[in-house]
Amino acid sequence: MPLSIAHLGPTGTYSEEAALAYANRLFPETEQKALLCPYHSISQTLRAIAEGQADIAVVPVENSIEGSVAVTLDTLWRLDTLQIQQALDLPISHSLISQARTLETIQSVYSHPQALGQCQKWLEQFLPKVRLVPTNSTTEALHYLETEATSSAISSQRAAGLYNLPVLVYPINDYLDNYTRFWVLSLKPTLGGSHTSLAFSFPANVPGTLAKLLQVFATRQINLSRIESRPSKRSLGDYVFFIDIQANLYESSVQSALAELDCYTETLRVIGSYTVLQV
Amino acid sequence: MPLSIAHLGPTGTYSEEAALAYANRLFPETEQKALLCPYHSISQTLRAIAEGQADIAVVPVENSIEGSVAVTLDTLWRLDTLQIQQALDLPISHSLISQARTLETIQSVYSHPQALGQCQKWLEQFLPKVRLVPTNSTTEALHYLETEATSSAISSQRAAGLYNLPVLVYPINDYLDNYTRFWVLSLKPTLGGSHTSLAFSFPANVPGTLAKLLQVFATRQINLSRIESRPSKRSLGDYVFFIDIQANLYESSVQSALAELDCYTETLRVIGSYTVLQV
Repeated sequence: MPLSIAHLGPTGTYSEEAALAYANRLFPETEQKALLCPYHSISQTLRAIAEGQADIAVVPVENSIEGSVAVTLDTLWRLDTLQIQQALDLPISHSLISQARTLETIQSVYSHPQALGQCQKWLEQFLPKVRLVPTNSTTEALHYLETEATSSAISSQRAAGLYNLPVLVYPINDYLDNYTRFWVLSLKPTLGGSHTSLAFSFPANVPGTLAKLLQVFATRQINLSRIESRPSKRSLGDYVFFIDIQANLYESSVQSALAELDCYTETLRVIGSYTVLQV
Repeated sequence: MPLSIAHLGPTGTYSEEAALAYANRLFPETEQKALLCPYHSISQTLRAIAEGQADIAVVPVENSIEGSVAVTLDTLWRLDTLQIQQALDLPISHSLISQARTLETIQSVYSHPQALGQCQKWLEQFLPKVRLVPTNSTTEALHYLETEATSSAISSQRAAGLYNLPVLVYPINDYLDNYTRFWVLSLKPTLGGSHTSLAFSFPANVPGTLAKLLQVFATRQINLSRIESRPSKRSLGDYVFFIDIQANLYESSVQSALAELDCYTETLRVIGSYTVLQV
């Protein structure tokens, strides 16, 4: 049985690119290949692993320009069996794809909201009057181009090639230093690595609790590389916190920090400890 | 000249509802009315105030289920002249609106990604196989219903009434306790109130900085009601932090906290100090 990798589809997405890069690292020279399984949404991708439909999931968790992918964090908080095995940092470079010959004839731009956000300044400068239409993925956006000659889509050059569509302008992202971090997740126990991701909730309205929790790491010289709050979905002002620390879960300082954290938190969860691969 | 209030349009959005509620509080019994000015996007709404096209903006900043509205925070960080005058908490209750007679004939659901997220469980239970299509606003979703009898939209009952469209199911939000907080912003100096919102950035990779910054409030018994990180857009792992504290900007403890914060931060910005109105 080949290893099955679930990702956000359809074919041509950046998620598929990350999944392929990961598969090539796993099986660089053997005949064994991974089976890529596209899903319609990120939450379906993650549920596929929890329900045993596929072996591993590759999902975006954070972009350097547009920030966290909320649905990934929210779904992982609900599905508490998934563990991070690896992080992949993928450089993102967007193209404007269209059957139109010039920018002047373009009336609409389709793409995923994250991609539209990453090209916001370019769009304001070169296509200030067009209609921006959000889609579920960057490749779903390409489906609108076949019938509408005045439409365009933001997607990768790779996707343009796969669907045999012309690239009108490249690159169009506002910041060249544009990366998306993906997490590789499965039901296997996490292995440990340079980064560890945690999630926790604590009773609201106790002044200073968050400061105290972060102090647990500061006193141990553990660097916090990221903090993200998400609504607990109980009431406005009640949150779940996601943090990344630059330390291995199995170091004694991290273990003692977790033991101390356990006293102050309502729920404390280790999502995984892993290395980061530049792909 | 009537007071002009910019908001995300077109007519029928929850933003318009918040703007109307605010206008009615300002002018409950006089003849003077506010002029509502709908804009296509939240960033355009905010820029309209910065450029003097309208007097005040009413924009969503956080929902109790779906969390922060990233574009609001990112735009306010760039436009540093806008100040919060008031917060409005609006209860959100979604309807499924469609020309279809039964759920069985529905093939697609259009709505703003925040509204789709707030009804995710209901959609998985009752419409598991339909296509979910994101739109720029909840009322933009209604435009698709006129031509497609198998389509549906998630929007408010008020919007259904305005566009003379039938409500098929109400309410469909997963959590009845669903609120969105809006900020009322203008170029006037902030007045002070029970809540104060700040934004800051600090040099990355100094372990313990965030813990130290939060400790500044904890030692003064100032409760932190919210923390949100957004990418600085410089590199992956470099953030701007937005925090809300439950204290008035003009209290001496807050003033001394800000003076201390100023030593550790790169940029420190007071977005406003205001009261919260339930509308």
